[in-house]
Amino acid sequence: MNRTDDLNKWKRTVEESMRLLIEASDMPTRLRDAMSYSLEAGGKRIRPALVYAVLETYGVPLERGNEVAAALEMVHTYSLIHDDLPAMDDDDLRRGRPTNHRQFDEATAILAGDALLTDAFRILAHMSLPAVEKVKIIEAFGLAAGSSGMVGGQLDDMLAEKRNDVTLQELQSIHERKTGALLVYALEAGGILAGVSEEDRSQLKQFGRHLGIAFQIQDDILDVVGDEQTIGKRVGSDEENEKTTYPKLLGLDGAKRALDAEVEAATFAIESLSTPAPLLLDLLAFVVKRNH
Amino acid sequence: MNRTDDLNKWKRTVEESMRLLIEASDMPTRLRDAMSYSLEAGGKRIRPALVYAVLETYGVPLERGNEVAAALEMVHTYSLIHDDLPAMDDDDLRRGRPTNHRQFDEATAILAGDALLTDAFRILAHMSLPAVEKVKIIEAFGLAAGSSGMVGGQLDDMLAEKRNDVTLQELQSIHERKTGALLVYALEAGGILAGVSEEDRSQLKQFGRHLGIAFQIQDDILDVVGDEQTIGKRVGSDEENEKTTYPKLLGLDGAKRALDAEVEAATFAIESLSTPAPLLLDLLAFVVKRNH
Repeated sequence: MNRTDDLNKWKRTVEESMRLLIEASDMPTRLRDAMSYSLEAGGKRIRPALVYAVLETYGVPLERGNEVAAALEMVHTYSLIHDDLPAMDDDDLRRGRPTNHRQFDEATAILAGDALLTDAFRILAHMSLPAVEKVKIIEAFGLAAGSSGMVGGQLDDMLAEKRNDVTLQELQSIHERKTGALLVYALEAGGILAGVSEEDRSQLKQFGRHLGIAFQIQDDILDVVGDEQTIGKRVGSDEENEKTTYPKLLGLDGAKRALDAEVEAATFAIESLSTPAPLLLDLLAFVVKRNH
Repeated sequence: MNRTDDLNKWKRTVEESMRLLIEASDMPTRLRDAMSYSLEAGGKRIRPALVYAVLETYGVPLERGNEVAAALEMVHTYSLIHDDLPAMDDDDLRRGRPTNHRQFDEATAILAGDALLTDAFRILAHMSLPAVEKVKIIEAFGLAAGSSGMVGGQLDDMLAEKRNDVTLQELQSIHERKTGALLVYALEAGGILAGVSEEDRSQLKQFGRHLGIAFQIQDDILDVVGDEQTIGKRVGSDEENEKTTYPKLLGLDGAKRALDAEVEAATFAIESLSTPAPLLLDLLAFVVKRNH
């Protein structure tokens, strides 16, 4: 991807937005420290990048996406904090640093997650945008993040880990909710902010859906063939944990073919938009060609 | 209180609303079971009652409050589920039944709480009301429930439990956020739904503030002088746990005088409204005279 400058600019923008929003809220120091600790842990900031890429595609000022980008990253971060808890994945490290509950304590980590989720909605309600659009953005966010979206996918993923007869259809449904829903939402919200047509909004969501599945297949493939040093975690862990993955269900070649099909479908959605969107195609390539 | 019929009617209404809203959402069975289990655990449903009492005071159809009442009770319920977790209060029983994580498991309890919180915002965004009012209601909800409200109060309460030099001012600030913020919000949202004047909305919030403090002082007093069978838990537990309470800081008589002062201030706020509000005065009396 030759859009590294864009990605870095958007990453800095969303990180600065989050910093200002958290600083502006009157809260206990320990809560702010715990929230900031995880917000500042880095990461690719893919969801904000998708929002900004849609705005740039339609020639809309990027500032208009700051709150949605921040809210998305706050909710993604809360989900990681809660997923890492001893009762869930029981992880001690994330991105090479102690997880939130290891750095602080379990109770603080639970509350930091709760606060990130709640404050994300407050931030969306407070942004400068006509109320009708704001309500659309908030409702779609609740749908993507709640019981029928991310949280539901996380619960089904947890149940699936105990089974060895998970089907391809179930695997897809879990990923579409657990990680896909927020990716689709990033594109949908970008479309609402840019005031695109119903037709374009629907294509943007289709693009998000296929991008999300491609992202997950690539994740699974990297766990089989990736370079440990580049990925930053041990490869082969999925097989050791007897996790159901695309390579396990389809074989490595089958998974690669499935990835190609998703990329093709995502590309088709982009080409159906009313305007050329080279930025979104580049982001797709970035997701598929990444080696970590 | 001779308004038991009203209270029972409102309780049935909000319980039915929550049941329908949860049933209407497409989610994993285990998640729905866990959310419903805690939503159906009963309780006084004080927050919904405050919303409905405001609507009835201003002659507004009660149905208009159904979503706000349900969202309030869902967020109150999520906070109880997370508070009961082993990392927080580590409670095995709530209202005589196993707590959510004892009935299901910790991971499910964490996710059920997350889903109740997220879905509450989605329900508010979806209700039938002009978008401008809806955004006001959502933003105030986020403020009341988030880092500067309920979650922040919960974190400070946790930190205060480890100290024996908590001042009256700190105690008040903790209660105003941990339990008071949602009570004040119930009155504020009722006021927005009823389309009351700025002046009345401000008096309703003042009423809620004093009602909340009165509620907490009465709780503390009952732990000293209450009847174990009526309260449903052991009395004297605050003293055993060396918890900072109003009776501990002010003595029992001092706490009773503080309670009287809050009731007086709450009554004054009600009498300053542009319309008589006997229902709200009755709810105040109910909170103060309750023996459990």
